[in-house]
Amino acid sequence: MNRYAIIMAGGSGERFFPLSRQQRPKQLLPLLGNGKTLIEHAVERCLQVLPAEHILIITSASLQQAIADVLHPQIPPSNIIAEPAKRNTAGCLTLGAALISTRDQNATVAALPADHYIGDTDRFAAALSAAFDVAQSHGLIVTFGIQPTRPETGYGYIELGEPLGEGFYRVRSFREKPDRATAEEFLASGSFRWNSGMFVYRLDIFTAQLAEHAPPFGSALAPLRQALERGDHDALSRCFGDLPNVSIDYALMERTPAIAVFAATFDWDDLGSWDALARIAHPDMQGNVRIGTTVALDCTGTTLANYADSSRLLCGLGLENLVAVVTDDVILVCPQDRVQHVRQIVEYLRSHGMDRWL
Amino acid sequence: MNRYAIIMAGGSGERFFPLSRQQRPKQLLPLLGNGKTLIEHAVERCLQVLPAEHILIITSASLQQAIADVLHPQIPPSNIIAEPAKRNTAGCLTLGAALISTRDQNATVAALPADHYIGDTDRFAAALSAAFDVAQSHGLIVTFGIQPTRPETGYGYIELGEPLGEGFYRVRSFREKPDRATAEEFLASGSFRWNSGMFVYRLDIFTAQLAEHAPPFGSALAPLRQALERGDHDALSRCFGDLPNVSIDYALMERTPAIAVFAATFDWDDLGSWDALARIAHPDMQGNVRIGTTVALDCTGTTLANYADSSRLLCGLGLENLVAVVTDDVILVCPQDRVQHVRQIVEYLRSHGMDRWL
Repeated sequence: MNRYAIIMAGGSGERFFPLSRQQRPKQLLPLLGNGKTLIEHAVERCLQVLPAEHILIITSASLQQAIADVLHPQIPPSNIIAEPAKRNTAGCLTLGAALISTRDQNATVAALPADHYIGDTDRFAAALSAAFDVAQSHGLIVTFGIQPTRPETGYGYIELGEPLGEGFYRVRSFREKPDRATAEEFLASGSFRWNSGMFVYRLDIFTAQLAEHAPPFGSALAPLRQALERGDHDALSRCFGDLPNVSIDYALMERTPAIAVFAATFDWDDLGSWDALARIAHPDMQGNVRIGTTVALDCTGTTLANYADSSRLLCGLGLENLVAVVTDDVILVCPQDRVQHVRQIVEYLRSHGMDRWL
Repeated sequence: MNRYAIIMAGGSGERFFPLSRQQRPKQLLPLLGNGKTLIEHAVERCLQVLPAEHILIITSASLQQAIADVLHPQIPPSNIIAEPAKRNTAGCLTLGAALISTRDQNATVAALPADHYIGDTDRFAAALSAAFDVAQSHGLIVTFGIQPTRPETGYGYIELGEPLGEGFYRVRSFREKPDRATAEEFLASGSFRWNSGMFVYRLDIFTAQLAEHAPPFGSALAPLRQALERGDHDALSRCFGDLPNVSIDYALMERTPAIAVFAATFDWDDLGSWDALARIAHPDMQGNVRIGTTVALDCTGTTLANYADSSRLLCGLGLENLVAVVTDDVILVCPQDRVQHVRQIVEYLRSHGMDRWL
């Protein structure tokens, strides 16, 4: 078995406006305040269990160069692939499978988002390594199910089925984002896990399952592979563009019986919006998160995130449950419970010709 | 009678941090968003009723040049005077009286703060002109009492006495800043006015009243005048430095019987803190005030004041009764009801060696 990783890095990430922009989406942000972008962290986590030349980054044409720059010299430029169009995770992983099949028929693949947070990288590496082994030995697609710590309504859930040993289970069901009451039940029951959107599978199993359960994707594999081998960009674009724009969960994972879940214990967050910072960035005694040059007086539950250069100061006085984000050219202020709506600002700018701040 | 004005421009104005700074206090701010500083507005108001060469600006040594630059070429540099020390309004007006006495014994003087807001300049000019006439003809010190529009606890009040005609009254009493209940009574009674800290008086009356009711100031007039005539900076500093550090209200106005009040009807605000903007800057239907390049979505009662250059955008989403102020190097966010405490930020910066932002 040869281990590969596909890092899915095509996201646009408007939810982290104003830090995220069209040309600098979430995966290219140093969100954790340590100077490293999320995609660098994603690559580093992979490097614990597989070699750099087996890491493929799949992104959009507009981000390809920026990502190549960030990952230089670790990742060979030929491993940073631009999708001809946006076709969601199903399109991305089909293209990835076609690409890997041109290089290695004996591959086992980890499909990983570029823009998530993982708290304990050693524990993640151990889980990833174990998932590679189970995927290989059992011929199953392994997902990572995260132990819920709150009744989150923003994630999908996976219901655990029969144990397979060593933290692996059959999947009883996939559940879409629940309402609050259902999320409370899921949390209380102990048998549900957050669907992290990370998968490990043998290339042959993945392609066979695609052919059986997701025919538009399964039947695209051969022409995509041919187009890649010939360097035929037109054929690639045409074939890829014909794919449905759906998630791999919807296209395959919820349909195939060849699936298992690893009940993961590492900290994980999909970093869906600014409130995620308060979960991952170690708030102080008053529940405040402070990034960059800030002063906080009489603040509670407040995130002050100053990503501008250090000549600029962000001051909060008497704030409760507020988020203030400063970049070189935009300042955003909103309550914690409105961070999910930050896209409204992006939409406003787009519809009012204020493109310079997009 | 020759009309003069003393514009008191020595204030430090920390309450408008981060727009106000040590070297750019309130009177040097374009607070009204029209590009003109408050002191320019103060000078323009005077020019409606007296000539530029009769306008004296009294400020601190550290602000003298900045003010001269702002008022160039309207006000002669020799009319922009640096106080040797900070001695409050009593010291300022005593120095002003000594200076004017070296130039003109037949002066009537308007003493005016440099950093207040006045809404209707024509009405103010008419009131000022009338006050000059009454001060001249009656030999009274005329104050301007502003019609209260809310139970403000941040201002002193003047109780109207017998009418003198044409909107002028004797003063029954000066009242210090009241508590809320008392302020409500003052507002309801109709016979109280806000003490605006603006005065008009004949130079001879002012000096005689100082001599009688404020001896430390009255007896300083002659030596200050001598020092000014001789250009003896040491003597000036010594004599001025010996003055008590008290307000002209406390030193003289509350003690002299030779005082009247004009019941003014123009809009006035002392611009004490950021909440003043919402009173003077025409809030929108949702009670929001927006200055500079801003986007406000679902905001109410919120002030978004962006004084940075137009390449920078200030966005508020879902805010209620908040103030966000942006300058080139500082961003301040606080609730409307905490703006009186903005000095705490200034004190924090001072005590933590963060002087670059003072």
